[in-house]
Amino acid sequence: MTWFRNILQITSFKSSFNQKHTYPSSQIIYTTRFFIRNFTSESFQTTPSPSSSPSVSNTITSGLEPTKPNEKPRVVVLGSGWAGCRLMKGLDTNIYDVVCVSPRNHMVFTPLLASTCVGTLEFRSVAEPIGRIQPAISTAPGSYFFLANCKGIDTDKHEIKCETVTDGADSVPPWNFKIAYDKLVIASGAEASTFGIKGVKEHAIFLREVSHAQEIRRKLLLNLMLSDVPGISKEEKSRLLHCVVIGGGPTGVEFSGELSDFIKKDVHERYAHVKDYIHVTLIEANEILSSFDVRLREYATKQLTKSGVRLVHGVVKEVQPQKIILNDGTEVPYGLLVWSTGVGPSNFIKATELPKSPGGRIGVDEWLRVPSVQDVFSIGDCAGFLETTGRPVLPALAQVAERQGRYLAVLLNRVGKVGGGHANCANDTELGGQFVYRHLGSMATVGRYKALVDLRKNKEGKGISLTGFVSWFIWRSAYLTRVVSWRNRFYVAVNWATTFVFGRDISRI
Amino acid sequence: MTWFRNILQITSFKSSFNQKHTYPSSQIIYTTRFFIRNFTSESFQTTPSPSSSPSVSNTITSGLEPTKPNEKPRVVVLGSGWAGCRLMKGLDTNIYDVVCVSPRNHMVFTPLLASTCVGTLEFRSVAEPIGRIQPAISTAPGSYFFLANCKGIDTDKHEIKCETVTDGADSVPPWNFKIAYDKLVIASGAEASTFGIKGVKEHAIFLREVSHAQEIRRKLLLNLMLSDVPGISKEEKSRLLHCVVIGGGPTGVEFSGELSDFIKKDVHERYAHVKDYIHVTLIEANEILSSFDVRLREYATKQLTKSGVRLVHGVVKEVQPQKIILNDGTEVPYGLLVWSTGVGPSNFIKATELPKSPGGRIGVDEWLRVPSVQDVFSIGDCAGFLETTGRPVLPALAQVAERQGRYLAVLLNRVGKVGGGHANCANDTELGGQFVYRHLGSMATVGRYKALVDLRKNKEGKGISLTGFVSWFIWRSAYLTRVVSWRNRFYVAVNWATTFVFGRDISRI
Repeated sequence: MTWFRNILQITSFKSSFNQKHTYPSSQIIYTTRFFIRNFTSESFQTTPSPSSSPSVSNTITSGLEPTKPNEKPRVVVLGSGWAGCRLMKGLDTNIYDVVCVSPRNHMVFTPLLASTCVGTLEFRSVAEPIGRIQPAISTAPGSYFFLANCKGIDTDKHEIKCETVTDGADSVPPWNFKIAYDKLVIASGAEASTFGIKGVKEHAIFLREVSHAQEIRRKLLLNLMLSDVPGISKEEKSRLLHCVVIGGGPTGVEFSGELSDFIKKDVHERYAHVKDYIHVTLIEANEILSSFDVRLREYATKQLTKSGVRLVHGVVKEVQPQKIILNDGTEVPYGLLVWSTGVGPSNFIKATELPKSPGGRIGVDEWLRVPSVQDVFSIGDCAGFLETTGRPVLPALAQVAERQGRYLAVLLNRVGKVGGGHANCANDTELGGQFVYRHLGSMATVGRYKALVDLRKNKEGKGISLTGFVSWFIWRSAYLTRVVSWRNRFYVAVNWATTFVFGRDISRI
Repeated sequence: MTWFRNILQITSFKSSFNQKHTYPSSQIIYTTRFFIRNFTSESFQTTPSPSSSPSVSNTITSGLEPTKPNEKPRVVVLGSGWAGCRLMKGLDTNIYDVVCVSPRNHMVFTPLLASTCVGTLEFRSVAEPIGRIQPAISTAPGSYFFLANCKGIDTDKHEIKCETVTDGADSVPPWNFKIAYDKLVIASGAEASTFGIKGVKEHAIFLREVSHAQEIRRKLLLNLMLSDVPGISKEEKSRLLHCVVIGGGPTGVEFSGELSDFIKKDVHERYAHVKDYIHVTLIEANEILSSFDVRLREYATKQLTKSGVRLVHGVVKEVQPQKIILNDGTEVPYGLLVWSTGVGPSNFIKATELPKSPGGRIGVDEWLRVPSVQDVFSIGDCAGFLETTGRPVLPALAQVAERQGRYLAVLLNRVGKVGGGHANCANDTELGGQFVYRHLGSMATVGRYKALVDLRKNKEGKGISLTGFVSWFIWRSAYLTRVVSWRNRFYVAVNWATTFVFGRDISRI
C-alpha cells in the first residue's frame, strides 16, 4: 500500500501549504475512497483558507459575480423577518435566483414569542426555517442563504459587502465577501429603542428574538430556584422574583399577561415555597395599549390588575444591575427586566447613505423603491414613505411588513416577466399599482383566556372591538392560520393543547 | 399620603442597611398594598443579603437544621439522574421529607439525547422536570429542590455543605449553605472520561446533558451554513463538515446513525449545495458495541458503513482546535468532534473520603449502604460494590441506576415505616433482601429505522438477538413507555410522527 500513501502525500502537498490532511491507509478499515476524495484530491484551490489567514476580513477575495444576460437575474434580500420572508415566499424562482443574507436562518413568529418565555409554547414552534419558506435557497444552483451581516452597499457597482456570522472559539474567524445584485431588497428590520438610557443594553432583556425568550426563561427559572435556597433574605427573595416590564405596548402587555398566568397556575403549583414573593410590574410612561380603542384599554387595565400585574406610571432614568431608577428618583429593585418600548432605526440603516424618511428609516416611494438609485427597494420596519410622497410612515407592525413583502414579490415578478429583472433594465417597465396599506385591526392577549381585538381601520375610526374569551379564541385561531408551515401550525396546536392539559413545562435546559 | 411615605421609609430603614426599596406612592397607580408587603414589611431579617456581601461563600450562615424527633425524617438526594430521580419517585412522602441537591432541575432521558442533536426530537421532550417526578419537592413544607452543587459531606455531623449554581453577570454571586440529613443518598453520577488526553475538554463536545446536544446542533448547523458562503476553500469546507465521533459504544453508534440519517435525508434536501462535503467518521480503539453479541456487532458495522459512516480503528493522542492527532501521527481534520468514550468517577467522588470500589467509585455493600458510616447510601454511576462483597462493579447503564433507585426507595420506605427514618436510628432495622441486578438486555439504534436488541442476560450467555425494523420498532416502543411523564410520552410520539411526515427541523435558535 506504499503507492497509496505516496499518492496521498503528493496530492496533499500540492493542494495545501498550511495544513496536512494525510490519512495513512493503515488506519482506514473501511471506505478509504471517501477520504481521498474529500481530504486531498478535491482540495485543489486557489483561494486561501480563511482559517489560515486571519487578515482575510480586510481583503475581499471572493463572492458572487454579476449575473450574465443569459442567466437568471439575482434578487438579494437583506433580512429574514416578516417582510423579507414574505417576499422570498412570493418570488417566482423560475424568473429569479434568490439570495438571502441574514444573521439568523429562520423567521421568528414574533406575536407568539411572549408565550415561549413561560413555556406555553416551545421555542421551536415560533421559528420557521427560511429553507421551508423558500426551498429554492437550499436547492437551486444560483440561490443561497448566507449566515452573514451586510456591512455596506455600493449602489453604483450594484454590489454589497457582507461579513459572516460565526461563534465559538473553535469556529473559523469571520470573513468578508461581496455579492453583486440585480435587485436589492433591504428588509433588515429595526432595533429595540433604548432612548439612550444608561444600562438598558447591559441589564435589560429585549423580546425580539428566540434567544431573548430563551434568556428570559432561563433567568426566570433560575431566580425561582435560587429564591428557594436557604441563606437568602426575604428582601433579596422579593427582588429576585420581581419581574419588571418596561413598555405598555402589545408585546409588554402580552408578556405581562403570560407571566401572571404562569404565576397564577404554574408557580403556585410547582414553586409553592416562593409563590408569595413573585410579582409582575408593568411600567409605562403614558398609557398602556395607546393605539387601541379606549374601551379596550380600560378592559386591558382591569384584566391585568385583576390577574395581579401592577401597573405603574413612570419614566425610566437609569438601569442598574439590580434596580431601576425612575425619573423622580424612585428605586425599583428587580430580578428580571424586560424592555419593550418599541423600535427605532438600526445602526446599519443609520449608516447607509440612502435617502431617509421621517424617523430615520430608509425612504421609499409609492412602489417601495428607494429613489435616486437603481434597483434598490426597502420594506418592513426599516422602510418608511418619503416626505415627498405625502404619506405617513407606517407603524412597525408585522402586518405592514407582511403586506409590503407580498406586494413587492408581485411587483418584482411582473418586472422580471417582461425582461426587466437584470440590473439597470427596469427603467421603462410598468410597475403596476402603488402600495396601499389597509389596517385589518389589532390584537393583544391579556392572559387567562382573555384577549382584545380592535377591528377599527384606524385610531380615530369606528368599528368592532371585541374582548374576553371569544376574542381570545379569535386571537389563537388567527395566529394559528398565520404560522407559516403546516409543521409549525401543528406544533403550535399541540403545544397549546399540552399546556392546557398538563400545564407549562418548567425544566431549565 | 405623607403618612404612607413615612411608613415606607421607616420600615425600609429598619429592614435594610444596604439597599433602599422606597417606592413613593405618587408613582403607584394600582395595588400599592403589594409593594409595601413585599419590599418593606416582610424584609425584617437577620441574615445579610447575599448580594451585599460577596464574601458570604466562606461563611455558612444558614441551611436546614437537623430534624426533630416529632418531625418527618429528611432524605437528602445528591443528583437528578436516573438513580436519584427513580429513588425520589418511589419515596413515600408521608414518611419522609425529600430534599434534592443538583445543578440541574430536570432529569435527562439520556438514551434519546442523540436524537435531539439533529432535530429528530425536541430538546424539551427528553428533559423531565424533577417537580413532575416527585411533586412534593415543590409543594410539601419540608421538601425542597436546591439548584446547587454539594461541596462536602460531614458524616459525623450528618450534614452536607452546598454551593448554589448561578449564572450571568447580573445574577447574585453563589453562596454556601448546610443541610442536615437523616439519610443521605449520593447519586451524583459520573463524568465523561478524557483519559487525560490533551485538548479533549477544550475542543470536543460530550453528549451527556441537554446543553451538550444544543451545542452540537448549533455547531452542526453553523458549519453547514458557513460552508456555503463564498470565500471558503473546498479543503476548509470538507474540514468544517467532517463530523468525528470518538468512541464506539451505544451513544457513539446511535449518534453516528442519527447523523448519517440526517445527512441522507435532510442535508441532501435542505443543504443541497454542500451535501457532497459532509461526512461522518467514527473512531474506536477496539471494536464498536463491544458489549453486544458478535452477530449484532457485524450487523451494526454493515449498517453504519452502508449509510456512509466511516469506521476507523485508532487511538487519539491529542485534540487540537481543528484536527485530531492519532497515536501513529495521523492527523484528522474535523469541524465537529463528539466525545463518548464512557465515564469515570467525578472529582467530587474522587475527593470524598468514603470507602471506594474497584474503579474509584463509592463502595457500597449488598444493600447499597456505604459501610463504616451511618445513614449514607450511594446508587447509580457513582457507586460500585466493594471488593469485600465479592460482586463485580456494575456497568454505568441507565437500567442499573434505575433499578438501584427503585430498590433503595423500597428499602428506605421499609426502614422509615418501622421508625428507623431518623439519623442513627436504623441499626437494628430489618433491611430486606439484598440488591440483585438482572440484565434485561441492551438496545442501540443504527439509524434508518434499524436497531439492535440484545436480550442475553450477560456477555457470555445465549439468548435472543434482534436486528432490523422489528428491532427498531421495539427500541422506539420501549423508550416511549419509559419516558417518565405522560406529557413527555406524548411529546416524543408527536416529535417522531412530525419528523416522519415533515422531516427534521433545521432552524438554528
